[in-house]
Amino acid sequence: MKNVLVAQSGGPSVAINATLAGIFERAITSSDVGAVLGALHGIKGVIDDNIINVSETLSDPNMIKRLIYTPSSALGSCRHKLDSPKNDPYSYKAIFDTFQKHNIGWFIYIGGNDSMDTVLKLTDYAREIGSNISIMGAPKTIDNDLCGMDHSPGFGSAAKYISTTFSELWCDIKVYDIPAVTIVEVMGRHTGWLTASSALASLQSGAPHLIYLPEVAFDNGRFIEDVQEKLRQSSAVLIAVSEGVKYSDGSFVGESEQSGVIDAFGHKYLSGAARTLESLVRKEIGCKVRAIDLSLMQRCAGHLVSANDLTEAKLLGVAALDRALKGISGEVSVINRISDSPYRVNYGTVPVSAIANREKLIPREWINERGNFVTEEMIMYLAPLVEGDFGVQSRHGMPVYIELS
Amino acid sequence: MKNVLVAQSGGPSVAINATLAGIFERAITSSDVGAVLGALHGIKGVIDDNIINVSETLSDPNMIKRLIYTPSSALGSCRHKLDSPKNDPYSYKAIFDTFQKHNIGWFIYIGGNDSMDTVLKLTDYAREIGSNISIMGAPKTIDNDLCGMDHSPGFGSAAKYISTTFSELWCDIKVYDIPAVTIVEVMGRHTGWLTASSALASLQSGAPHLIYLPEVAFDNGRFIEDVQEKLRQSSAVLIAVSEGVKYSDGSFVGESEQSGVIDAFGHKYLSGAARTLESLVRKEIGCKVRAIDLSLMQRCAGHLVSANDLTEAKLLGVAALDRALKGISGEVSVINRISDSPYRVNYGTVPVSAIANREKLIPREWINERGNFVTEEMIMYLAPLVEGDFGVQSRHGMPVYIELS
Repeated sequence: MKNVLVAQSGGPSVAINATLAGIFERAITSSDVGAVLGALHGIKGVIDDNIINVSETLSDPNMIKRLIYTPSSALGSCRHKLDSPKNDPYSYKAIFDTFQKHNIGWFIYIGGNDSMDTVLKLTDYAREIGSNISIMGAPKTIDNDLCGMDHSPGFGSAAKYISTTFSELWCDIKVYDIPAVTIVEVMGRHTGWLTASSALASLQSGAPHLIYLPEVAFDNGRFIEDVQEKLRQSSAVLIAVSEGVKYSDGSFVGESEQSGVIDAFGHKYLSGAARTLESLVRKEIGCKVRAIDLSLMQRCAGHLVSANDLTEAKLLGVAALDRALKGISGEVSVINRISDSPYRVNYGTVPVSAIANREKLIPREWINERGNFVTEEMIMYLAPLVEGDFGVQSRHGMPVYIELS
Repeated sequence: MKNVLVAQSGGPSVAINATLAGIFERAITSSDVGAVLGALHGIKGVIDDNIINVSETLSDPNMIKRLIYTPSSALGSCRHKLDSPKNDPYSYKAIFDTFQKHNIGWFIYIGGNDSMDTVLKLTDYAREIGSNISIMGAPKTIDNDLCGMDHSPGFGSAAKYISTTFSELWCDIKVYDIPAVTIVEVMGRHTGWLTASSALASLQSGAPHLIYLPEVAFDNGRFIEDVQEKLRQSSAVLIAVSEGVKYSDGSFVGESEQSGVIDAFGHKYLSGAARTLESLVRKEIGCKVRAIDLSLMQRCAGHLVSANDLTEAKLLGVAALDRALKGISGEVSVINRISDSPYRVNYGTVPVSAIANREKLIPREWINERGNFVTEEMIMYLAPLVEGDFGVQSRHGMPVYIELS
């Protein structure tokens, strides 16, 4: 009886462990599968034969439940991009040696764009050497920039953290009756999906008032005009800005000449988009202004997960292994949306080549004409993704998270 | 029948509206009280006669429940420090004119140190002019720096946000197997209570590894030694640092000469303690390092409140009005701790002079000898304050917050 090997890669999210849980649930309910093994730190763990057995820990149903909502990658992660077999034959040989040593029949790699590139390369290599191991991808990225699927797991929970945080920041900043601008930087280097999700907060309170995304060229003058107009309507103005907003020449606002600050030791470093715009508002408008960076909190807030997101992430793991058990290789499990309201989805797979090394941008028509907010279509798309509370267990007033390694 | 007037002042917290809810509950169950009125933007609203009636909205029991967990100040806030009657007779006359116009029998001011100074001045002034209005204070501050009470409302929920966030940041940063230091800045300009609460996360995971508080003089050399030692034990090191850490000469780490960065437009601005230390680690150790600022999120996270904190905050409102109804003036309602385990408290009042313009520091013996972590006594003190989940209502996947003004 062969074993399943799982690895996790790329930036953490709160849903990546749910996919591992789904793979485990499919495995223990199949009479064809032996143990579920995990490679530590992504593909590097496969290369280095750094393998653990997770079946024993997860045989406790309570541990599966906790694993589902535990943020980040319980098997560790890496940023290793696999080169071609021609340039790096050693790594490929090491990977397939590890597969053989641990009697692996199926390998599932959970990750984003880069990881899907790894799945593609390993699938091609397996075919070349005549290996019959099934290699499948399971998607995850809070950025929601993967093609071939309605949305990617991890995005909904991050969107929920972001929209909730914007609604709370609005409660906080609106209390004083003096003009004040608050600029909140949200992750998303090339796409604005996460930043756009702040718009859900506006359903309750009307804030944020302005949203700037990488999909539309940023212009300092228009930005100041927008802020001045909003300040005429409200003394407190809340703004969402993507870390990846860029000028029409393609340079990032947060990395432009004017954002280069000199640190304590005389070194130049990048201040980020929100801090650059904070300085701009201070100079051009002169009112109270504050930059806030949601930083890592937006991708690891396990206490505030979307139940829809975690359920979907788990079922993507089930679907990936289920397909692999049929002997299929080189595919990625995906979520397809059937309808917005009621929200209905199903699960399928697509060839990994449809996903690897591609990026899904926000459609221009989901952003308003002025490029400073999103449209109703975007709200319709986002709304179901943040729904549902997951019953997170707590101790000492904090969520109970588990460790596998 | 006389009315109650309530105002809220100072920095927002998630518990300040719970105290307003408590005042309202005591008022509607008393046959002596007419309406509950609110002054908008603190004492400024009283001076300017900017008064609303909140009784009608809060007659809906569901609205009281939502008010309890709605973050920030539903009546708005201000940073206005009342001068003496000698220097500013106009404001005192305006305040007592407002009291008379709205038939106010009792005035409750919810706030921190500065607001208690306002309560003190108004009580003295009322006595001088022979007014029989009762003026009482209800405490709030996430900083937990108020004397005369075991802890202040709002602190427990902020502590819960901080400890939960540290436990989640640890899940996030530990996944890579390369040395990385993460420095998280927590509020607390003069006292380290909030930063110390990060220690609760260490009960589950051992992180944060180092905690630096304003109560102990900061030393760059010792800090780098501490970080190097922790890096020998763990590739990822998580550090909590208070915004108010200072060197032995009294200068703030975040405002010292070496933290002055030059912004995009050539202006010097302060980078904060964590960013200063980020630059220091980069220079002295050279590993991957990241600064994170918990910013306003730590004081407005209504979705993650401590039920103990909100219950206590509400009862402090009840206690303040209850005492005022007896004709008492110039006192502040306080929480007394009877025991740690089981956690038991009661409510009382103390003269406002015992609280106004004073600051409660962390006892030195609750910090370890090296000054880089807290002791078991601190953990025992903190643990019950973050306990209990409050049933926050949600819609669109976000908590439902209310507006009064």
